Amino acid sequence: MNIQTIIEKKRDKKELNNEEIKYFVKEYVNGNIQDYHAAALVMAIYLNGMTDKETTILTLEMAKSGEILDLSKIRGTVVDKHSTGGVGDKITLILMPIIASLGIPVAKMSGRGLGFTGGTIDKLESIPGFKTDVAMKKFIANVQNIGISLIGQTANLAPADKKLYALRDAIGCVESMPLIASSVMSKKIAAGAEKIVLDVTVGNGAFMKTEEDAIKLANIMKNIGNLANRETVCVLTNMEEPVGYAVGNSLEVKEAVEALKGNMQEDVKEIVLTIGSYIVKLAGIGNNIEENKSMILENISNGKAYKKFLELVVNQGGDITFIEDLEKFEKAKYILPIISDKSGYVKVLEAERIGRESVALGAGRIRKEDSIDKSVGFILNKKIGSKVERGCILGYVHANDEEKGKLAIEEVKKAYEIVEEKVDMPKYILEII
Amino acid sequence: MNIQTIIEKKRDKKELNNEEIKYFVKEYVNGNIQDYHAAALVMAIYLNGMTDKETTILTLEMAKSGEILDLSKIRGTVVDKHSTGGVGDKITLILMPIIASLGIPVAKMSGRGLGFTGGTIDKLESIPGFKTDVAMKKFIANVQNIGISLIGQTANLAPADKKLYALRDAIGCVESMPLIASSVMSKKIAAGAEKIVLDVTVGNGAFMKTEEDAIKLANIMKNIGNLANRETVCVLTNMEEPVGYAVGNSLEVKEAVEALKGNMQEDVKEIVLTIGSYIVKLAGIGNNIEENKSMILENISNGKAYKKFLELVVNQGGDITFIEDLEKFEKAKYILPIISDKSGYVKVLEAERIGRESVALGAGRIRKEDSIDKSVGFILNKKIGSKVERGCILGYVHANDEEKGKLAIEEVKKAYEIVEEKVDMPKYILEII
Repeated sequence: MNIQTIIEKKRDKKELNNEEIKYFVKEYVNGNIQDYHAAALVMAIYLNGMTDKETTILTLEMAKSGEILDLSKIRGTVVDKHSTGGVGDKITLILMPIIASLGIPVAKMSGRGLGFTGGTIDKLESIPGFKTDVAMKKFIANVQNIGISLIGQTANLAPADKKLYALRDAIGCVESMPLIASSVMSKKIAAGAEKIVLDVTVGNGAFMKTEEDAIKLANIMKNIGNLANRETVCVLTNMEEPVGYAVGNSLEVKEAVEALKGNMQEDVKEIVLTIGSYIVKLAGIGNNIEENKSMILENISNGKAYKKFLELVVNQGGDITFIEDLEKFEKAKYILPIISDKSGYVKVLEAERIGRESVALGAGRIRKEDSIDKSVGFILNKKIGSKVERGCILGYVHANDEEKGKLAIEEVKKAYEIVEEKVDMPKYILEII
Repeated sequence: MNIQTIIEKKRDKKELNNEEIKYFVKEYVNGNIQDYHAAALVMAIYLNGMTDKETTILTLEMAKSGEILDLSKIRGTVVDKHSTGGVGDKITLILMPIIASLGIPVAKMSGRGLGFTGGTIDKLESIPGFKTDVAMKKFIANVQNIGISLIGQTANLAPADKKLYALRDAIGCVESMPLIASSVMSKKIAAGAEKIVLDVTVGNGAFMKTEEDAIKLANIMKNIGNLANRETVCVLTNMEEPVGYAVGNSLEVKEAVEALKGNMQEDVKEIVLTIGSYIVKLAGIGNNIEENKSMILENISNGKAYKKFLELVVNQGGDITFIEDLEKFEKAKYILPIISDKSGYVKVLEAERIGRESVALGAGRIRKEDSIDKSVGFILNKKIGSKVERGCILGYVHANDEEKGKLAIEEVKKAYEIVEEKVDMPKYILEII
């Protein structure tokens, strides 16, 4: 077996076999295959694609390149949830306590933000004291004790994926469907998921810009799930505009807490109910999607979901008084209104631009080692379909640097397109696969 | 300017501009661009191609990455000759003394063999004492004094090409037309050529397996020549079978000496005359190709070409007594006949297999640092179109290891396909471009 033959095979659009992919993953992690070999192979994969069979083998080998979590001591079916990334995406924060409140175990590892998309771990860490770096034993004990734990990915989770992702990032090969699919699924499998619900985001602020591409990606991931014996459901959600009204770490935590108390924006509500009801179904608790939605709504209105969130915060060392009084969160120094120049209806609110601007304010990181500013971001009062009047407030910039804040106002205005004709509210759930 | 954007552009099949290619070549040679970046770009070029404009810019930048030879002190037009590689290719050894004997200056740098193709420098060095490592001043003085010098490529000749070639070799991206074309042409331009005649080999023992591909490559190189202001003619020659009857370093030198004395096989003769007459034309000595051929034949029959070869050997320190008495060359220990099992006509004589077997005997190198055995190789009495009888001698293996020699006999037999029907002699010159 040698890497050159493997590269040539993929260069010539041939299917790699089990041994070849195994050899590549193992020897690349070991350092016996050089980055330049891997770079050539990755570019060939980017341009010539991979079959579902190849993608599944790659996924499993990447999962096996590190420790695979054993969640068998947890009673009940652990259903993992993952989003392919977006702007203002606080669904995990809201949904996982709901799921746990229904008696379904939640043992979830999440990522940090990178590029213009945020990460659940960064958001959770904006709650003072909240610990996301938890040892495996403690993680499992947490789930056994209170039914939920949310932690950061361990260093040894799918190291092959980490190495390959960094390389893809350096050589402009992130946006390859089989490589995105295998990256997502390898981490889910390594994190011990038995069943998986994927939030496949679509649109301006997502990796997949079109529904067509998102369907392709969803089908690849669903196939990997089947071939790897992990039942998988993909929910395609709209990411043309940010999800909910807050973008930025502590701002999103506050929105999540409000949502858990029942105050949800329409898009957040639809996504939480849909993904949640499929998690309930996969966990074997309820087969009827509409009934599952009612179960979820009930646990919001009776306060059980909110209570579960408080338990989670306490259990992982977070200061609960911040959740009970959201005003305690440190506010950004400058809270600047964004005023509309036009009357009409919001037709476009570019999620990617908002995401990039939140990074510019300090809410996200460009390189892995960057530190982030928890308090900055945006509150967006007007979203696609909203009626606006000239002079009204579209939203607010939360900034700790006045200059950056002023620049951000201009950029957010560019993200809005306001037209005269009435604009319908977008569809938030596009498809279930 | 950054390498990632350049990679992404080529990944997306867009044309790179002057600044981008310049930046890549310069920073890659400087070490500011990593091998993994270059590997991704090279694979994208392999799969998505390059326009002639891009290829020309790459060629010129690679030429400029080192010293460009100044041959302006040499009187007359220096016409360089280059072959895209093959087996038994001793055309340069024969042709260049002929050209010099016609008063056209020959200032030529040649390469060493790599893989299954041989190199002129290795062949020349099989003449005891012959020095191919000559300083630039001396090289030019040689041409001024006796009209000819043949030397090895200097270390500083197109270093970007050296670095890129090694990378292409490691990642299975050698056989990319724009990259082959720019590699050949960058070295020619760096070596000071004003005009160029290219021997583009076609067939089993060449990079280009089909005439169609060879025509494409020839047109790319001709276009580069035009765009770079170096008039270029491409002669497509047959490389289905080895050229001439000898394969191996000193064996080929002996064949070349015989050829210079007028004893040429038909294929060698046609190629020497055709390429030679175009060199004469480009040098401005004769416009009529048929008349040029006569000039060449005359300088063979009157002994001037052979005499020029002796001058070259003396001038570069070679022991002339070996040329005057070819029996003085050290012979291989085992000279083993290859006996035909069949009667009929030779239909196939696979050049590549012969080339690989000569490397196995020690005549060539697999890695750059390998040493070579000058005396081993093959003499092939029967070539495509030859009539053979069962039990006749197809040729001889010259080996210094008996076991290897015996294996080589079997391999050479496999290279021959003998059929009952009469087989025509192949066309040796396929096209002039």
